[in-house]
Amino acid sequence: MKMKINHAWILTMNQEFQMYRDGYVVIEDQKIVETGDGEGPSDVDQTVNAQGGILMPGMINTHSHISMIPFRSMGDDCPDRLRKFLFPLELEAMTPELVYRGARYGICELLLSGVTTITDMYYFEEEAARACEEMGIRAWVGQTVIDQPTCDAKDGREELARCENFLKEWAGHDRIHPIVAPHATNTNPPELLKEAYELAKKYQTLYTLHVSEMDYEMTMFRDKYGKTPIEFLYDLGVLGPDTLAVHCIHATPNDVHLFAETGTKVAHCVGANIKAGKGVAPVKEMLESGVVVGVGTDGPSSGNTLDLFTQFKMIAGLQKTHYHDRSAMPTQSIVAMGTKGGACALGAETEIGTIEVGKCADLVLVETKSVNMFPVYNPYSALVYSANASNVDKVWVNGRLLVDGHKLVNVSLDAEREALMHEMPAFVRQAETYADVL
Amino acid sequence: MKMKINHAWILTMNQEFQMYRDGYVVIEDQKIVETGDGEGPSDVDQTVNAQGGILMPGMINTHSHISMIPFRSMGDDCPDRLRKFLFPLELEAMTPELVYRGARYGICELLLSGVTTITDMYYFEEEAARACEEMGIRAWVGQTVIDQPTCDAKDGREELARCENFLKEWAGHDRIHPIVAPHATNTNPPELLKEAYELAKKYQTLYTLHVSEMDYEMTMFRDKYGKTPIEFLYDLGVLGPDTLAVHCIHATPNDVHLFAETGTKVAHCVGANIKAGKGVAPVKEMLESGVVVGVGTDGPSSGNTLDLFTQFKMIAGLQKTHYHDRSAMPTQSIVAMGTKGGACALGAETEIGTIEVGKCADLVLVETKSVNMFPVYNPYSALVYSANASNVDKVWVNGRLLVDGHKLVNVSLDAEREALMHEMPAFVRQAETYADVL
Ligand SMILES: [Zn+2]
Ligand SMILES: [Zn+2]
Repeated sequence: MKMKINHAWILTMNQEFQMYRDGYVVIEDQKIVETGDGEGPSDVDQTVNAQGGILMPGMINTHSHISMIPFRSMGDDCPDRLRKFLFPLELEAMTPELVYRGARYGICELLLSGVTTITDMYYFEEEAARACEEMGIRAWVGQTVIDQPTCDAKDGREELARCENFLKEWAGHDRIHPIVAPHATNTNPPELLKEAYELAKKYQTLYTLHVSEMDYEMTMFRDKYGKTPIEFLYDLGVLGPDTLAVHCIHATPNDVHLFAETGTKVAHCVGANIKAGKGVAPVKEMLESGVVVGVGTDGPSSGNTLDLFTQFKMIAGLQKTHYHDRSAMPTQSIVAMGTKGGACALGAETEIGTIEVGKCADLVLVETKSVNMFPVYNPYSALVYSANASNVDKVWVNGRLLVDGHKLVNVSLDAEREALMHEMPAFVRQAETYADVL
Repeated sequence: MKMKINHAWILTMNQEFQMYRDGYVVIEDQKIVETGDGEGPSDVDQTVNAQGGILMPGMINTHSHISMIPFRSMGDDCPDRLRKFLFPLELEAMTPELVYRGARYGICELLLSGVTTITDMYYFEEEAARACEEMGIRAWVGQTVIDQPTCDAKDGREELARCENFLKEWAGHDRIHPIVAPHATNTNPPELLKEAYELAKKYQTLYTLHVSEMDYEMTMFRDKYGKTPIEFLYDLGVLGPDTLAVHCIHATPNDVHLFAETGTKVAHCVGANIKAGKGVAPVKEMLESGVVVGVGTDGPSSGNTLDLFTQFKMIAGLQKTHYHDRSAMPTQSIVAMGTKGGACALGAETEIGTIEVGKCADLVLVETKSVNMFPVYNPYSALVYSANASNVDKVWVNGRLLVDGHKLVNVSLDAEREALMHEMPAFVRQAETYADVL
C-alpha cells in the first residue's frame, strides 16, 4: 500500500531545513519512501490533497505524566502543591484503572494536537504503555522510581523491581520503548539513582529524571554536598548520551558544560516551569554549547495542556525576554526543538523527527484555513506564533492515519471521557478533603 | 424579544466573583435583565442550552492594530523591525482598502475567539471603524497621530486634523467610540501630545498611546529630560482617568505611583512584549497600587493572534516567573483583567465587563467538550491554562448572536479572506523589497 500526500507546504526539518512550497510525500510500509516538489508520482494507491496546509514531522513531547489528566485545573495557583496535595493524592487515590483511562484520554489530546511521540513517566506505567500500544502513538514510557510510599509500591527498591519487570515486559516492541525513570535528584537516595542507571545500561535504554527544578532541591544539594544537582549526578556517573534531564531550570554555566561534555540531553518544559514561577532554563546557552534539547509539556497537572504549540510560543517569549533579544531563539529553532530535537533527545534521530526518505511516517498536517492562520509568509513563525492545537487537521503515526479532519479515527472522544469519568469519583472525593484545591 | 441561556457555568465577574454552577441569563433589548441559579424563567421567546459550558462576560481587548493582518508572520525575529520595515511598509503600501479589509478579517478572529470589545488605533481609522460598525463588535477606535510622514498624512498636525474629523464623524454612536490615539511618547513632540490630550478632553473621550515600551524610548527621555516617559507625561499633564497607557514595560515604582495618583489606566500586552524580548511589565505592583489594568494583544504583527486566551497563559507565566511566586496573579485575577479590568480601562464599567443585570449582553460561551477542556474543577484555571480560542462556541454582542457553533453568523470567513487577499498583492510586492522579511 503506497500513499501520497501532495499540495503541502512541506517542512522537512532536514539538515538544510529544506522546504517544498508545493510538495509531496510518499509513504509505503510505515516509512517515507519519497518526497519532493510538485505533484509526486502517480503510481500510488491513495492520494491525500493537503490543500496548501503545512506538513511537518510529527511532534515529539519529551516529558509528561499523561495519566494525570484527572488533576487538571486543580489547585493551579497553590504554592508547593507537589508536596501539599499531588504526592498525597497520588498515594491515596491513584489506581491502575485511573492511570489507564487517564493515559487513553491524554493520548487523544496528544494525537489531536499533532504529537506523534510521547515520553511518559508515572506509576502503574504498564497501564500507560498499554494505552499507548492500543492507540497507535509512539512512546517512550518509564516506570517511576521514587523512594517514598506511593500508589504502586512501598519504597524505591520495590519501584526498581517494578521497573525491571516493566523493561522485560515491553522489550523489543517496535513502537513502545520501556525506559527507566527515577523521579528526581532529591526523591531518591544516590545509590538508587545509580542502580537505576545501571538498569538502564543493562537494558540499553533511556534514563530520565527531574533535575534542577525545585528551589528546595537546589538548597538541599548545596547544603548537603556543596554541589549543584547536575554536578552531583556527574560525580555519581549517571550523566551520558542516554540520560534525559528534565527541566534543568537552574542549570549553571558549569552544569551546561557537564551536559555538553557527557552528551546528556534536556527536556525543556517551559509551560510548567513558568506556571510555577520557577524560572527560565538557559536553553539558548544549552543549544550554543551543543546540548540536545527537546520540548516537553510536563503532566496535565503541571502544564495543563499536552500540545507543543502552547510551548512553542512560550519558549520564544521566555528565551527572548530572558536574553532581552528579539533575535534569540528564532522560530525555525523552536520547531526544530519540537521535532528533530526531541528525536535526538530520545536517541531516535535515525527513525523520527524529520521528513526524509527512510524515516518512519510520523506526519502532521496543519491547516491554514482557520482564521488565525492567515497569512503565512514564514511557516515556522506561523507554527510558533499563530497556530494552536485546533489547527491540526491530520496525523499519521507509522503511516497510519490517526487523526482526520480534526477528529480521532476509530476513537470516540466522548466515550473516552465517559470511561475516564467513570473511574474518577473516589479520586475527586479524596481531592475534596484538601483545602484550597477544588 | 426575550432570550434565555441556561445550563451554563456562569462567571458573573461581579464584585464577589459570584458563580452559578448551573445557571441562566435572560437577555432583553440588548441588556442582561436577569441571572441566577437553575432553569430560569419560562416566559421567554428563545432558550439556548449551554450544555454545561462556561458563560463569561465578553472579553475586552484593550489594545490592537487589527488592520495589520497583512503583516502577520512577517519578519517576526527581526530586531528593530518597527523602524526597519514596519514604518516604511506602512508608508509605502498601506491603503484605505487594506485597512478596511484587514479590519474585517481581524474582527472575524476577535469574534471567533470571544473578544466582544476591541480597542484599536491605526491609520485610515475611519475604515476600521466602518468595519467594526458593520460586523457588530463593540469598539473604541482611534486615529493614530504620529509626527512623521505615513500612509494617511504628511505629519502630526495633519494627523491631528484627521483625528478631530474622525471624532466628529463617529460622535454619539452607541457601539463605536472614537478616541484619540497619539502613536507613542517618542514619536510626537510634547506640544502635539498635549494638543491631542486637549482634543480628547474636548470630545470627552479616551486618550491612548504606547508608553515605556522601547529601550531607545527610555534612553531618549533619560538623556533629553532626565525623566522616565511616564514622569514626562505626568509633568506634561496628560495622565488621568481617561488616559490608557499601553505596554508600560519599563514602569518604575514611581511611575506606578503616578498612575495610581492620576487614575491612569494600563493596557498590558504581554504577548507582544515578550515576543520582542522587551521585558515584563510590573502588573502585580500596578494592581496592588490600585491601577486599573486591561489585557491587549497589540497588532497581529506584534502579538500575532488577537485572542485573549493566548495572553492569559502568558500573563500568568510571566508574572509568576517575574516574582518567582506561583501564587502571584491567580487565574481569577487574570480573567478579571480580560473582562471587567478592560471595561474599567475604557471607562465603560457601567456598560460591560460583567454578567450583571443592566449590563449590555456581551457574552461568551466556552464549551468544555473539546479534549483540552476536561476536567474543570476551577473554571478560571480552565480559561487561563486549558482553553484556546477554538473553544469559543457562541458569542453575543449587545444581545446579538455573532458566533454560533464556532462559526461566524452571516459572515463567510472564506469570502473575507478572499477579499483581503485581493487587496494584498501590491503590499506583498513591496514587502519583498526588504531583506530578511519574507
Ligand atoms: Zn514532570
Ligand atoms: Zn501597539
